[in-house]
Amino acid sequence: MYSDRIKHPALQHKLITAQEAAGMIRNNTVVGSSGFTQSGDSKVVLPALAERATHDPLQITLITGASLGHGTDGLLANAHALHRRLPFQVDPVLRKSINKGEVLFIDQHLSETAEQLKSGHFPHMDIAILEAALIEEDGSIVPTTSVGNSAAFAQLADKIIIELNISVPLSVNGLHDIFYTGNFPNHRIIPVTRPDMRIGRTSIPVDPEKIIGIVITDIQDSAADIAAPDAATTAIAGHLLEFFNYEIKKGRLTQSLLPLQAGIGKVANSVLTGLLNSDFHDLTMYSEVLQDSTFDLIDAGKMLFASGSSITVSAPYYEKIFREIERYKKHIVLRPQDISNAAEVIRRLGVISINTALECDIYGNVNSTHIGGTHMMNGIGGSGDFARNAYLSIFVTSAAGKNNDISRIVPMVPHVDHSEHDVDVIVTENGLADLRNLAPRERAKLMIAHCAHAEYRPHLQDYFTEACQAGGQTPHLLHKVFDWHTQYKNTGSMKKEVLEPEIY
Amino acid sequence: MYSDRIKHPALQHKLITAQEAAGMIRNNTVVGSSGFTQSGDSKVVLPALAERATHDPLQITLITGASLGHGTDGLLANAHALHRRLPFQVDPVLRKSINKGEVLFIDQHLSETAEQLKSGHFPHMDIAILEAALIEEDGSIVPTTSVGNSAAFAQLADKIIIELNISVPLSVNGLHDIFYTGNFPNHRIIPVTRPDMRIGRTSIPVDPEKIIGIVITDIQDSAADIAAPDAATTAIAGHLLEFFNYEIKKGRLTQSLLPLQAGIGKVANSVLTGLLNSDFHDLTMYSEVLQDSTFDLIDAGKMLFASGSSITVSAPYYEKIFREIERYKKHIVLRPQDISNAAEVIRRLGVISINTALECDIYGNVNSTHIGGTHMMNGIGGSGDFARNAYLSIFVTSAAGKNNDISRIVPMVPHVDHSEHDVDVIVTENGLADLRNLAPRERAKLMIAHCAHAEYRPHLQDYFTEACQAGGQTPHLLHKVFDWHTQYKNTGSMKKEVLEPEIY
Repeated sequence: MYSDRIKHPALQHKLITAQEAAGMIRNNTVVGSSGFTQSGDSKVVLPALAERATHDPLQITLITGASLGHGTDGLLANAHALHRRLPFQVDPVLRKSINKGEVLFIDQHLSETAEQLKSGHFPHMDIAILEAALIEEDGSIVPTTSVGNSAAFAQLADKIIIELNISVPLSVNGLHDIFYTGNFPNHRIIPVTRPDMRIGRTSIPVDPEKIIGIVITDIQDSAADIAAPDAATTAIAGHLLEFFNYEIKKGRLTQSLLPLQAGIGKVANSVLTGLLNSDFHDLTMYSEVLQDSTFDLIDAGKMLFASGSSITVSAPYYEKIFREIERYKKHIVLRPQDISNAAEVIRRLGVISINTALECDIYGNVNSTHIGGTHMMNGIGGSGDFARNAYLSIFVTSAAGKNNDISRIVPMVPHVDHSEHDVDVIVTENGLADLRNLAPRERAKLMIAHCAHAEYRPHLQDYFTEACQAGGQTPHLLHKVFDWHTQYKNTGSMKKEVLEPEIY
Repeated sequence: MYSDRIKHPALQHKLITAQEAAGMIRNNTVVGSSGFTQSGDSKVVLPALAERATHDPLQITLITGASLGHGTDGLLANAHALHRRLPFQVDPVLRKSINKGEVLFIDQHLSETAEQLKSGHFPHMDIAILEAALIEEDGSIVPTTSVGNSAAFAQLADKIIIELNISVPLSVNGLHDIFYTGNFPNHRIIPVTRPDMRIGRTSIPVDPEKIIGIVITDIQDSAADIAAPDAATTAIAGHLLEFFNYEIKKGRLTQSLLPLQAGIGKVANSVLTGLLNSDFHDLTMYSEVLQDSTFDLIDAGKMLFASGSSITVSAPYYEKIFREIERYKKHIVLRPQDISNAAEVIRRLGVISINTALECDIYGNVNSTHIGGTHMMNGIGGSGDFARNAYLSIFVTSAAGKNNDISRIVPMVPHVDHSEHDVDVIVTENGLADLRNLAPRERAKLMIAHCAHAEYRPHLQDYFTEACQAGGQTPHLLHKVFDWHTQYKNTGSMKKEVLEPEIY
């Protein structure tokens, strides 16, 4: 059975059901699972574990690459099966449990989880559930649409359950580039000097003795659901392309730019779509996620090569990519996330990073994660890995939201994921603030003039003017710095007139 | 004249006075100067420029390695000669000008200035003033007690003025390791895999045509003034050494630890002094600044090797180091700050970083720079370079200050330099909070129990309990999160009883 996908003879006898696999996971253990931006995740074992937990209560620490698809995090949260969860999630049900304090969520730079596990900063991993397309003769596994932390989990977990996904064509073999940095004090150089450079092997080494079961699945990844560009995202993309052209004119960039990184979301998608209809050429990408727009750029001959840790695309793109996988393999590679997000490589390559902010303050600090400063949305993901080390660190957001009841440019962000030191450029549909080489007071003027929504601009200016009278490198009025957020919580709007009589 | 120190024959005719050199600096230009933690700085040209500015007004952008000695930044600020200043300073006079908004200060990760200049993100550098001990036959210069950004400035500035410091023995030659990473997209790997590895050359390449003048000086560096350990710093050091021993017991560290980085200040000094009287051995350092304690550890045979970007020591240590420089050269190296502080190397070596916080919040966010959230103290310096990439990122601070009128553990820091993601351990004289592998709510419990001052502990607990009722990943009450800071500003104390009737 499945001898074309299980080439290690002894392992052909390890087939088990998802329910049997879920039964092997004990209470209070640390479980690793493949899965990065909903790709290459556990399709059946984790759901079976959630099902089991509804009648046989247990709790685990679940560590993944990044987010899982198919609502699996929600199933686990609903079944109260998660004690601790890291390093990222996007599930609306799990989010509620996290914000209630029922699930302990560790929001972590995606480059760091493997390092922390290796170094023993986290408890030992008991069991890993890894999706694979193929098990080689030596027991090594070929991952599917993501690598994420699977290479580290395979090395560190005591036991391994393989989810062999037969819906993924065997031609996926050769897409991955697996490299280990080793342990301190003999940590190796990561020798990537170009996005298209391969430095490792195509399969993840696995000790066959550790494989306690193989579960067959044929469930595809959750399809990405990316909203089409709208007026605001198109405007943002336009400002950014104009900025790139300005940088070319100044001799700081060429029409090939530098390797691009783009977060998930419709703004990043709009920017990449904007590149499609531009004079830029011979582009490259050194990113986390390869999305629809990446493949459009490759197909258009605009992008030479894209490096990521996962492929997260819509259903038609998924079909097409696997239909033409041999062609795409010349243009893409999937790496472990401690390599795709490595500070070392990002700084060496001079990545241009584009990520989405929840809100920004007038001095250029960015909140990527906490709604109202308190409630977790998704997590910092890889944005910090890229923003800190990028050649250009760009954040995009709409100027206002919720029918303009929320200004996304505020006096002070109530949660800082990226400090002013790590933010070069901020773009909204209103305009672009180039914050390089500017002191905080200069940054504030640009942020208010270029990025803020017209309705909030005078109020931001009033705040800034009054704050400057009190002095400082970064002028603020702490006694009322979060009045806008507090008002929004109480009234549903940050607009000044809503509560003016009472609060001013 | 000075043929032993000016080996390039044509340059022997370039001797000028400090006043003549200062006269060559034009209004509205960008000036680079050597100098890192008060070492190897411009001793006479910048002071002469300040003097000139008092009767011949001019303003420059001044970019250095880090801080300057001899009150030079204060002289320049008093003379209104600074329009813009980066990336770091420690001068009380300049600090006032910055906080008044008179000098535009760009507070920057110390690893990044050279990158930003190279990439053209900053305006072109017109002139560099570089302290040197020696000019070689080819025009290359041997720096003195720091490298800082001098190698980048030498490459990027249109013109160069050398301050040839004849008080620095020629035997300093051989102490430095100069390496260039090159430009994007061909940025090179920084091949340091051990602190003692040399990867470059001993002198900074300089095009002799660019040297427009050589000024002779014999003024030594400002002597470091490090306070002796006291009860609080000794307690902090004790907690930290106990923690290191615990890590050894757990098998995560050996008695040689991993390469150490320590910021300037009496706490870091206490910790290093604590290592002197311990069982640790074969220690190494990959840091920015080599201080008195570094040399004590080398002399005691405890430290094998220390890599930094400057030597900043007290007067007796300065004498001793140069008396025995040939011996010390086997144990130390000075590198450019984009190498000493490189993300790539810090993460590869697994540095244990110890830096000082102004204040920390209950969730582990750290303010290193802004007093009251608004007024600049010194700058972020290299703390971010190390904290982000370290194997262990440790911050130290006293639990309370100013006769306990300030709690250094607060509900929320009003300025974030290091987010929770980049902070592993926080230590005060009260105890140590090991924040690894913990969600924010767990972090808060430890911070309150282990780090907070007894007087503030119940009030922090009250805040946290009430905030948790409102929910969230990182519970906060934005409407009163900065009440302590506001009260301190108004009354001079954060203590609850001071204003209780009015504010609660």
